[in-house]
Amino acid sequence: MAGTMSFLQTLQGRRGDRVPIWLMRQAGRYLPEYRELRTRHSFLEMVRTPELAAEATLQPTRRFGFDAAIIFSDIMTPLEALGIEIEFAPGPIIRRPLRVRPDIERLELRDDPAPYVGEALRLARAQLPEEIGLIGFCGAPLTLAAYLVEGGGSKDFEHFRRLLRADPDAMHVLLNRLTELSVAYVRMQAGSGAQAIMLFDSWAGLHDAATYAEFGVPYNRRIMEAAGDAGAARIAFALGASHVLDALAEIPCDAVGVDWRTDLAQARRILPGRALQGNLDPAVLFADRATIEREARRVLDAASEVPHVFNLGHGIWPQTPIEAVSGLVRFVHSYTR
Amino acid sequence: MAGTMSFLQTLQGRRGDRVPIWLMRQAGRYLPEYRELRTRHSFLEMVRTPELAAEATLQPTRRFGFDAAIIFSDIMTPLEALGIEIEFAPGPIIRRPLRVRPDIERLELRDDPAPYVGEALRLARAQLPEEIGLIGFCGAPLTLAAYLVEGGGSKDFEHFRRLLRADPDAMHVLLNRLTELSVAYVRMQAGSGAQAIMLFDSWAGLHDAATYAEFGVPYNRRIMEAAGDAGAARIAFALGASHVLDALAEIPCDAVGVDWRTDLAQARRILPGRALQGNLDPAVLFADRATIEREARRVLDAASEVPHVFNLGHGIWPQTPIEAVSGLVRFVHSYTR
Repeated sequence: MAGTMSFLQTLQGRRGDRVPIWLMRQAGRYLPEYRELRTRHSFLEMVRTPELAAEATLQPTRRFGFDAAIIFSDIMTPLEALGIEIEFAPGPIIRRPLRVRPDIERLELRDDPAPYVGEALRLARAQLPEEIGLIGFCGAPLTLAAYLVEGGGSKDFEHFRRLLRADPDAMHVLLNRLTELSVAYVRMQAGSGAQAIMLFDSWAGLHDAATYAEFGVPYNRRIMEAAGDAGAARIAFALGASHVLDALAEIPCDAVGVDWRTDLAQARRILPGRALQGNLDPAVLFADRATIEREARRVLDAASEVPHVFNLGHGIWPQTPIEAVSGLVRFVHSYTR
Repeated sequence: MAGTMSFLQTLQGRRGDRVPIWLMRQAGRYLPEYRELRTRHSFLEMVRTPELAAEATLQPTRRFGFDAAIIFSDIMTPLEALGIEIEFAPGPIIRRPLRVRPDIERLELRDDPAPYVGEALRLARAQLPEEIGLIGFCGAPLTLAAYLVEGGGSKDFEHFRRLLRADPDAMHVLLNRLTELSVAYVRMQAGSGAQAIMLFDSWAGLHDAATYAEFGVPYNRRIMEAAGDAGAARIAFALGASHVLDALAEIPCDAVGVDWRTDLAQARRILPGRALQGNLDPAVLFADRATIEREARRVLDAASEVPHVFNLGHGIWPQTPIEAVSGLVRFVHSYTR
């Protein structure tokens, strides 16, 4: 059957007639049935209750016919296993940020990371049609460290970048702890039904290439190797990372997720042999239908020579019109190379 | 005398023995004598009082021996002349953001933009030693538009990027108004003693290259042409812009300011015939002296084949140790190619 398993086949390097599509943050606030769930449950309650997380995971595939589902969670979720308390408002807030070395050296893996995510994956996999892929994910250590040191999101992440420069050894201690956690976490997810693991390096773009090569790449490599050993396909996504594509090429993975600013032709040159995932600007979904289709076609054409999973170049925005999403899915599925 | 006018000569394409240095945001919060002034005057009061603005402009050159002074102001300052009210906290806040076309079409240039900046430039120029360059500046229209539509700073500038996609014609109307204002503003500054004009495109990095070529480049070009016609040297700075260097090459200017993430070798290739200004990571100033000197040398060596003005790759951070700055200036001035 045309299209069956097109998502995983594409990650495996096979180019079919039909381009598979899913959208980052497809389980979330732009979706009326998700907002309805949220009237009764907090974000953290949903993440930690397997039945609710599985339901949020499945909602967008039911409505739109996406080719993959991504588990409803957050990159900060497994950090509780290190004894770190995190709130969401909606971005992560860490009331006791890690600013000095003793706080970092005190971290240790106390529990299995987020076992409820494993249960949610099992529930989702059992309900998903076989031909739809299921994606687990984790945050890149350097991105998790950015939040943990800064205490939350930030424009310039001054505390974090200052610590990295003033005490690089402490930063490596932190990155090692986060990597050990993440390796355990992706193994658990792969063993619980996640057929692909996506690594989100949302703040890779803060760093120059030499810094990213030292503090980002080695840790990302260990996580992706663990995911591969556990039998999962692997997607590496880095935001604002046009200037570190050479370093990204050093991370073992099947596909690279590219943000809306990354030139697909350049990504093809620097990342030979990888599938590409992306990269429509999420803002385009607020334009008229003709503009959406023109911009989607530009992405499809630019990636037509490589295995390509269509996606946005960043998470879908909460205000996005539902009909723009359904129109995009129809358009991508009707596109033939 | 060695070093005389080295800043302006470098912008004119001459490579001397000595690399000139100044730092973005060198007039500001990391400086004790500036903080002392701020105990008695608000930020806006200082910007609008020529004697105070001139004093803040001169403070860092007195203390550190920088080769250029940049007028103490903000890129949002001239927007008052369009009837827009702006507060600072410390980033700009626009209580009535421009979200719909009628609000944009209503904008008109009511007054001369920020005449107090011209007076501050005259006062500063009169007190500055002849060999120290004086820099005026303005914000790029696309960056000013980002703040005006969004209402202030933002992680993703969703309102702004949404308007750009949903109503590109309205965005062009806004960019044209902002360009007319900026052209008048840089002419006034060049006529008031600014020997160089720097264009700050702080949010260039939000856009993919095609979008930046349409909405950024043509407006920046008009402003830089006006600055050149008025006899000023021209520096174009765009943040997070590694992926739009080809588009930046289309903007007439003498030097390109590059942020800490931009590879200098790549910038040299894409921007032949331009001086480069930058690009030490401001976070490096929190490291020990040996690390600062190693990283500064890396920048100096990478730019040694082109006319180079040493600078940070972004504004200096408020917590930066004073002695790190003085050490950096000494090191750069002692460097010989």
